[in-house]
Amino acid sequence: MTKWVYSFGGGQADGGADDKNLLGGKGANLAEMSGLGLPVPPGFTLSTDVCNAYYDNNENYPDGLRAQAAEALARVEQAVGASFGDHGKPLLVSVRSGARASMPGMMDTVLNLGLNDQTVAGLAAQSGNERFAWDSYRRFIQMYSDVVLGIDHYHFEELLEIHKEKLGLQLDTELGSEDLRNLVDQFKAKVAEEGGGAFPQDVNEQLWGAIGAVFGSWQNARAVTYRRLHDIPASWGTAVNIQAMVFGNMGEDSATGVAFTRDPSTGDKRFFGEYLINAQGEDVVAGIRTPQHLTRAARQAAGDEKPSLEEVMPEVFGELEAIYQRLEAHYRDMQDIEFTVQKNTLYMLQTRSGKRTAEAAIKIAVDMANEGLLNREEAILRVDPNSLDQLLHPTLDPAATRQVITRGLPASPGAATGKVAFSADEAEALANNGEDILLVRMETSPEDIHGMHAARGILTARGGMTSHAAVVARGMGRPCVSGAGQLRIDYKSQTVRVGDITISAGDILTIDGGSGEVMLGAVATIQPKMSGDFGTLMGWADEIRELGIRTNSETPAEAKVAIEFGAEGIGLCRTEHMFFDADRILAVREMILAADMAGRETALAKILPMQRQDFVDLFTIMSDLPVTIRLLDPPLHEFLPKTDDELAQLSATTGATADDLRHRANQLHEYNPMLGHRGCRLGISYPEIYEMQARAIFEAAAIVGADQGKTVVPEVMIPLIAGKAEFIYLQARIAAVAEQVGAEQGAMPRYLIGTMIELPRAALRAGEIAEQAEFFSFGTNDLTQTVYGISRDDSAGFLEDYLAKGILDADPFATLDRDGVGELVRLAAERGRQARADLKLGICGEHGGDPASIAFCHEIGLDYVSCSPYRVPIARLAAAQAAARGR
Amino acid sequence: MTKWVYSFGGGQADGGADDKNLLGGKGANLAEMSGLGLPVPPGFTLSTDVCNAYYDNNENYPDGLRAQAAEALARVEQAVGASFGDHGKPLLVSVRSGARASMPGMMDTVLNLGLNDQTVAGLAAQSGNERFAWDSYRRFIQMYSDVVLGIDHYHFEELLEIHKEKLGLQLDTELGSEDLRNLVDQFKAKVAEEGGGAFPQDVNEQLWGAIGAVFGSWQNARAVTYRRLHDIPASWGTAVNIQAMVFGNMGEDSATGVAFTRDPSTGDKRFFGEYLINAQGEDVVAGIRTPQHLTRAARQAAGDEKPSLEEVMPEVFGELEAIYQRLEAHYRDMQDIEFTVQKNTLYMLQTRSGKRTAEAAIKIAVDMANEGLLNREEAILRVDPNSLDQLLHPTLDPAATRQVITRGLPASPGAATGKVAFSADEAEALANNGEDILLVRMETSPEDIHGMHAARGILTARGGMTSHAAVVARGMGRPCVSGAGQLRIDYKSQTVRVGDITISAGDILTIDGGSGEVMLGAVATIQPKMSGDFGTLMGWADEIRELGIRTNSETPAEAKVAIEFGAEGIGLCRTEHMFFDADRILAVREMILAADMAGRETALAKILPMQRQDFVDLFTIMSDLPVTIRLLDPPLHEFLPKTDDELAQLSATTGATADDLRHRANQLHEYNPMLGHRGCRLGISYPEIYEMQARAIFEAAAIVGADQGKTVVPEVMIPLIAGKAEFIYLQARIAAVAEQVGAEQGAMPRYLIGTMIELPRAALRAGEIAEQAEFFSFGTNDLTQTVYGISRDDSAGFLEDYLAKGILDADPFATLDRDGVGELVRLAAERGRQARADLKLGICGEHGGDPASIAFCHEIGLDYVSCSPYRVPIARLAAAQAAARGR
Repeated sequence: MTKWVYSFGGGQADGGADDKNLLGGKGANLAEMSGLGLPVPPGFTLSTDVCNAYYDNNENYPDGLRAQAAEALARVEQAVGASFGDHGKPLLVSVRSGARASMPGMMDTVLNLGLNDQTVAGLAAQSGNERFAWDSYRRFIQMYSDVVLGIDHYHFEELLEIHKEKLGLQLDTELGSEDLRNLVDQFKAKVAEEGGGAFPQDVNEQLWGAIGAVFGSWQNARAVTYRRLHDIPASWGTAVNIQAMVFGNMGEDSATGVAFTRDPSTGDKRFFGEYLINAQGEDVVAGIRTPQHLTRAARQAAGDEKPSLEEVMPEVFGELEAIYQRLEAHYRDMQDIEFTVQKNTLYMLQTRSGKRTAEAAIKIAVDMANEGLLNREEAILRVDPNSLDQLLHPTLDPAATRQVITRGLPASPGAATGKVAFSADEAEALANNGEDILLVRMETSPEDIHGMHAARGILTARGGMTSHAAVVARGMGRPCVSGAGQLRIDYKSQTVRVGDITISAGDILTIDGGSGEVMLGAVATIQPKMSGDFGTLMGWADEIRELGIRTNSETPAEAKVAIEFGAEGIGLCRTEHMFFDADRILAVREMILAADMAGRETALAKILPMQRQDFVDLFTIMSDLPVTIRLLDPPLHEFLPKTDDELAQLSATTGATADDLRHRANQLHEYNPMLGHRGCRLGISYPEIYEMQARAIFEAAAIVGADQGKTVVPEVMIPLIAGKAEFIYLQARIAAVAEQVGAEQGAMPRYLIGTMIELPRAALRAGEIAEQAEFFSFGTNDLTQTVYGISRDDSAGFLEDYLAKGILDADPFATLDRDGVGELVRLAAERGRQARADLKLGICGEHGGDPASIAFCHEIGLDYVSCSPYRVPIARLAAAQAAARGR
Repeated sequence: MTKWVYSFGGGQADGGADDKNLLGGKGANLAEMSGLGLPVPPGFTLSTDVCNAYYDNNENYPDGLRAQAAEALARVEQAVGASFGDHGKPLLVSVRSGARASMPGMMDTVLNLGLNDQTVAGLAAQSGNERFAWDSYRRFIQMYSDVVLGIDHYHFEELLEIHKEKLGLQLDTELGSEDLRNLVDQFKAKVAEEGGGAFPQDVNEQLWGAIGAVFGSWQNARAVTYRRLHDIPASWGTAVNIQAMVFGNMGEDSATGVAFTRDPSTGDKRFFGEYLINAQGEDVVAGIRTPQHLTRAARQAAGDEKPSLEEVMPEVFGELEAIYQRLEAHYRDMQDIEFTVQKNTLYMLQTRSGKRTAEAAIKIAVDMANEGLLNREEAILRVDPNSLDQLLHPTLDPAATRQVITRGLPASPGAATGKVAFSADEAEALANNGEDILLVRMETSPEDIHGMHAARGILTARGGMTSHAAVVARGMGRPCVSGAGQLRIDYKSQTVRVGDITISAGDILTIDGGSGEVMLGAVATIQPKMSGDFGTLMGWADEIRELGIRTNSETPAEAKVAIEFGAEGIGLCRTEHMFFDADRILAVREMILAADMAGRETALAKILPMQRQDFVDLFTIMSDLPVTIRLLDPPLHEFLPKTDDELAQLSATTGATADDLRHRANQLHEYNPMLGHRGCRLGISYPEIYEMQARAIFEAAAIVGADQGKTVVPEVMIPLIAGKAEFIYLQARIAAVAEQVGAEQGAMPRYLIGTMIELPRAALRAGEIAEQAEFFSFGTNDLTQTVYGISRDDSAGFLEDYLAKGILDADPFATLDRDGVGELVRLAAERGRQARADLKLGICGEHGGDPASIAFCHEIGLDYVSCSPYRVPIARLAAAQAAARGR
C-alpha cells in the first residue's frame, strides 16, 4: 500500500528536511524540527503524491488515504490528549498547504478546524475563556466559508462591523463572548443565505472539505500565475499539513511571532523579527495591530516604546534564541521562523530558508563562509544569479504606492519613469532636451536603436522575451517591458489606451522591467548598492567556474561595460547594428537597392571605411581579448527606406526612380523573414557584402595590431549555415580577401573562421561543418525558433496559454529546452569535436545569460557562454554554480 | 600513379558500360562496344576524375595526365596507321564531352582536329579528295574557333554566304576545293581579327585547347542550367573522349546516321532512324539537308521517294541490323545509336539508352518483359515515374511555335492557355461565362482557391515549388508556374510587365507547368493517351511495391480522381480548405474575431453542420479506405476580412464595431506566420475549435456508418506538435467529445488519433509522443522549412543562387534532404516504433509524390506515402521501383 500520510511531533517524525519533494517545504521542515526534538505541535502531512494522484484521477482521492489519515489523526489525539470532535476535550487542527517551493500567499489555510456548536463549549471549558472559544469559532466560520465554501469574507466583516457599530465599539477585542456567540449565529445564517447550506457540524466533513480546498487551490488562478512567474511546474503538486492548533491568543501569557535569523534586507547578523501578545499568527501578517520588536536592541534602535519579547517573556525569548541558533547551525542558512507562545509555552510552527534581497544574500553567503559554516562552493550556491540584476539596475522603491494599469513581459530588468514618446526620433529629440523619456512602440526595429538609447526605458505591445526590443534593451541595460498586449497604441492620435485609460504623448508612465508591470505616473526608485562582498563572491566564482564568459556587444560603450563586469571577450558582435547609424544608412540602402553588382560595390566602397573604424574601436577596447564578429545576418529589407522622404533622398543619391526603388523594395518583401533571405544566404547571393566586411575586419586588425604592437586575431563568424557547402563557398571568398589584404599590407592577416550553429540541419551536419570551421557558436535563439517552429516575435500570445495550461514549464526562449534544442546542441558539440578535437564551442543566444541554460552549457562541456553586458556577472556566478554542483 | 586515361578500340577496351561514373556515358559505351568487338574507331577517354581534379586544383590538370594521353594517342596512331600531325598520313580526331548522365546539346564538341596548313594536304592525298580535305579544314576552323576560341560561328557563316553569293551559288556542296581553300584563308584572317590570334598550327596545342574547352563547358551557363533542371550534381564532372575521325562525307559510298532500336515516340518495335549520304554527323542533327529513312518499310509508309539505307547499301544495312539487335539484346534496352559509313565500311560512334516519351517507355518496358528480355521488376525500373505526368495532363504540341517571355518554376505539370485575370473573383466570373482564364497573381492564398479552381492555370510571381499556389494547383490538377520573378504585376493598372512587354487583363498567355515557361498568346496543346500497357505496368507495380499510396485531398472531386488513379486512402485532408467557401467564411471570421469563448462557440455552432457534411461526403466516397483528417492548421489571420466591405459585412453580423474588428485583426498579425499561432497552438488557445471539428468528424462517421452498414474509423490528426504535452492536452479534449457523441448516439465512435511530425522537436521527442499517438504522418514541407530554416514562400530567389552555385544539388522542398531532414525522419520513425511497435507511419508532405523521396520512405520502412491526386500513379510506380531496387 502506498504511504500517503506522514506523521510528525513528539520528538520524532516520518520524514525530514530532505523530503521536500514529497512533503512540501512546510511539512518537511516541521518533520525535521520534530526530529530535532524542538517543540512542534504534533500533526501529519498528506504528501504531494496525493495531490498528483488526485488530479490524475479526476479529482478523486487515492485508495487508502482516508484510513491512513484517520490513523495519523488518532496519534495526534493521543499526543495532545484531546479528541477530534469531542465535546469535552476537543482537538482543533490547522489545515495548510505546503508546496515544494515556497509560494507565499498563493495557497489557502484554515485554522481552528474542529469547532462546532458542541466543541466550542468544550474549548471554553478547557481554556477557561469563553470569549476566546467563541472568537475562535467565529474566526473559523469566516475562514472556512471563505476558503472552502467560496463565500467571500467581506460578508462576515460587514456583519462584524454592523454589530460593533450597533454597540458603539471600536475594536474586535471589545466584543464580549455573548456578542461573539450572537455573531456566530449571524455568520451561520449568512452562510446559508449565500448558498453554503447549513454550516457543517461534522468535524470530519470539515476536515475533508478543507483538504479538498487546499488541493483545489493548487490550480486556482493566483497559484497558476505564481507558478508561471517562478517557473514552478504544475506537476510538483502541493502537500497538506494537518497540525494540532496552539493558540497565541489565549491571553496575555500567549503570543505569536515571525523572525529571521539574520536581517533579510541587509544580511547583517542579528536576530530580526516581530511578535504580538494575545494574537493568532494571521494577525501579525494582516497588519491590523502593529507588531512589537523581538529584541531589546531592535526596539531601542527604532526608538519604540512597546516592550520587546526579550523584555516581556525573557525565558521564552531565551528558549527561542537557543532554537534559532540551533536551526541556523543545523540548516546552515538564514532561517525564516514562525512561533507561537501558548500560556508561556513556546511552539515552533515553521522554519524555512528566509527570502532575502540580493544584497543580503551575498553578505550572508560571504559571512557564513567566513564563519566556517559554509565552504566557498556552498556560499556560491546560496546566491540566486538572477537576483544580481537587483544590484545592477535601479529598482522600484517597495514603499512607494503604484497604480498598475497593465502588465507585459519582464524583458529587461530595472525600473524606469519617463514621458511617453511614440517614435525613436521624438524620444531622441526630447531626451536631448534633458527630458526622461519612455519609448512606447508596437514593437521596435533596428531603426529605433537611437531612440531606445535615448530613452530611460522601453515599453512594447508586441514581442517576447527575445524580441528585438528585449534583446537590445538588455544589451544597453535599459529597462524594458515587452509584449504588453492590452496596450492599444494609436500612432496617429499619439495615444495609447488600456481599457478605459488613455495616455497621451508626454504623459508619465513607469515600468518595472523586473516584474513586467506598467504604472501610471512616476514611482520612486532606489539605486542599487554594490558591496565589497559582491566582489569577494565574484572572485570565488571566477576561481571555481570552468566556462569562459564573453559578451554580446557591438558598441564601444557596451564593450566597456562588459569588461567592467568581467567579460573575457566578445562572443557575438552583430555587424548589422553598425549599419543603422544616420550617416551610413543611406549607403547601406544604396547597396541593397542596387540593380547589379557594380552598384552594390560602389555603395559598399562607401561603407568600408566606416565599418573598418567600428572594428578599430572594438579591437582597441578589447585589446588582448577575443572578438567574434558575425557577418551580416538580418534580411536586407530591415534596412529599407519606409517613408516617401527616405525614398526621395535615396532616389537623389542613386539616380534610380522612386518607382524602381519601390519595386525593388517590394521584391525584397518576405512572408517569413526569419526563414528568408538572410544570414549566409545574403553572403552567397551577394558575396561582395561579406567580402567588404572581411576586408574591414582584416584592415582594422592590422591597424590596431600595428598600434598596440601585437597581432590581433579576429574570429570571423558566418551566420545561418545549414550545411558544409555554404561554409566552404564563403570561407574561400573570405580567404581570398585575406590574401589580398595580406598582399597589400605585406603580412597575412591571422584569423579564425567559424560559424553559428543555429539551424537543426547545421547541428545534424556538425561533423562535416567542423572539418572546415574552427569554432562553433550556438545561436540558440534561432535554434529554438526552428526546433520548436515558433517565432520569438509572434510567440508571446500563445506561449502564455502554454504556460498557463502547464504545457510548457518555462519559456524556451528564456531557458534552453534541454529535451529538444538541448539534444541537438549536445549532438552538434559531439559531432563537431569528433571531427576537430580543438573545436572552440560557445553559445551566444540569449540563453548564454540564463543560469539554468548556463548549467547545461557547463554539463556538455562548452568552452564559453556569451551574454549581454549586464548579465555577465550573472553568467559568472551561474557558471561557478554549475561547476560547484558538478563536483 | 592514378590512371586518368582509358583506351578503347580494336576489339578491346580499358573499361565498359559499368564505368559510366568514371568514363561518362559516351566513353563507357564506346568501351563496351569495343569490348563486344563492334567496329568502333579507336580512341581514349580522359576520366571524370580529371574534370574534378581540374576544378579542385584551380583549373590545372593533374600530374601524369599529359603523359598518359600521349601514350594513348600513340596506340590510336598505331591502330589507325596514321600519325597525329603527320603531313603525309595525318591522324584526325574528334574531341567530345561525355558526362555520367546524358546532357544533349549542353556540351561542346570539336571534329576534324589535327588539321593544319600541312596536314590538310596529307588528308587530300590520302582521301584522294581535295575538296573533302579543304571542306574538313574549313569546318574545323569554324568549330574550333567557336568552341575553343570563343569566336561566334556566325562570323564564319557570314563569310561563307558572301562567298557563295559572289559566285552565285546556292549550296555549300557547290563550292569547289579552291573556293574552300580561299575560305580557309578568310576564316583564319577572321580569327585573328576577332582576337583569336594566329589559328594554331600545332596539333597538340589544338588538342589541349579542345580538351580545355570541354572541361570548361562543364561550368558554362547552359550546362549549369541543364544540371539544375535535371538534378545533376556538379561534382559528377564530365569525361572527354578523343577518338579517331571517320568520315561519312568522303563521297557517295559514305554516309552517316542516327537510329533508335524501337520507336521512341510510340514504343513500337521497329528500327527507326535517318541517314544522309556523303555527310558528317552534325549535318543530320543540324537539319540543313533532309535525311532519308533507314528502312524500306519506313520510307514507303512515309511515301518518301529518296531511297532508304536498306536499299542503297544493303550490305551495310544488314551489318547495322545485326549490330542493333545485338546491342538491344546486350543492353536489354532500347538503344539510340550513331553510325558512320566511310567508303562502305560501317563504324559505330555511339550507343546509349534512347530517350523516349512516357508512352513509349511504358510500351517498351511491357513489351520487353513479355518478350522475356526483362523481368517485371526490371520493366518497372525502366519507366521514369515523373514522366507519367505527360500521360495525365495535356502538354504543349512540340511542333507549335512559342514565344517564351519568361520562366518560373515548373510547379504543377501540364500546359494551359487563357485570358489573364488578376483576381480570383474575376477569374471565376469570366470562367462562368465560358472563358478560359489564366489566373496571374503575385502569390495565391487560401482565399483564391475558387479562382484557381475556375482558371485553366495559375501563374505567380512569387513562391517556390511548395508555395500555396504550387501545392493547391497540383492537388487540383491545374497547371501552374510559380515564382516567375521577372513579372512586374501591377494590380491597379491590371497589367503585368516582363521587360518591355506589357500584358493587360484579357490578353492571352500560355504556361507550361512542366517546364516553367511562360509564352505570349495561345500555343497548341495535345491531349495525353493512356494505353492498356499503362494499366499492365501499374498492375505489376502494385504487386511489387510495399508502400501504401494515399492522397492529399479534401474535396469530393479530388478524392474521386485520386481513387481512379489508385489511391488507397486519404493521408491528408486539410480541413481549413473547407473554411473558405463563400457561405461559411463569414461564420469563420465571426469565430476568429469573437472577443471571448462564448462568441466563438456561437460562431462554431454555425460551422459545425457544414463541416460535418464535408466529412459525410468524404467518408461516403472513400468507403472502406482510411481517411486522415488534420485539424485546423493555418494561422487564423489567413481567414480575416481584408476589405472595408468585408469588415462592414462582418460588423453587421456580429454587432462589433469595424474599429474593434480591425483592432482584433491587427492583433492577429504575425511577422512570421509560418512560425506563429497555428496548428495545435490554435487548438490549445481555443480548444472549442478542435472540439467542433472532432464532433463534426465523429457525427459524420456515425451517419455514414449507419448509411453504409459498417463502422467508419476516421484518423484524427493533430498538426504541429512540438512535444508530448500538447498532444496529451488535445487528445483528452477530443476523447471527451468522443464520449459526448457516444453518449448522444448510443455507440462510442471508433477512431485513431495521431499527429504530424513536422517540427524538429517532434522528431526528437517521437518516442514519448508515440506513447500517446497511434500514428505519425511526416509533414516534410514544414520539417524542411524548420530543419533548414527556410520558408517555402520566400526561398525561390536564393535557392536559385544556391542551385546555380552548386551549393545545393536539388530543391529540398521538391526532393527530401536525406542528410538533414532525412536523419530526423529516420530517427523519429525509429524512436516512435520503439515506443509503439504498431505505430502507423506515413508521409504527407509534397515529398510523398517525389520518386527519390518515396525511395527514402521505402528504405526507412514507412507504411505509406500520401501525395496529390495527380501524383498517385507516379507514387505507385516509384514505390515499386524502390521495392525492386531493394531486392
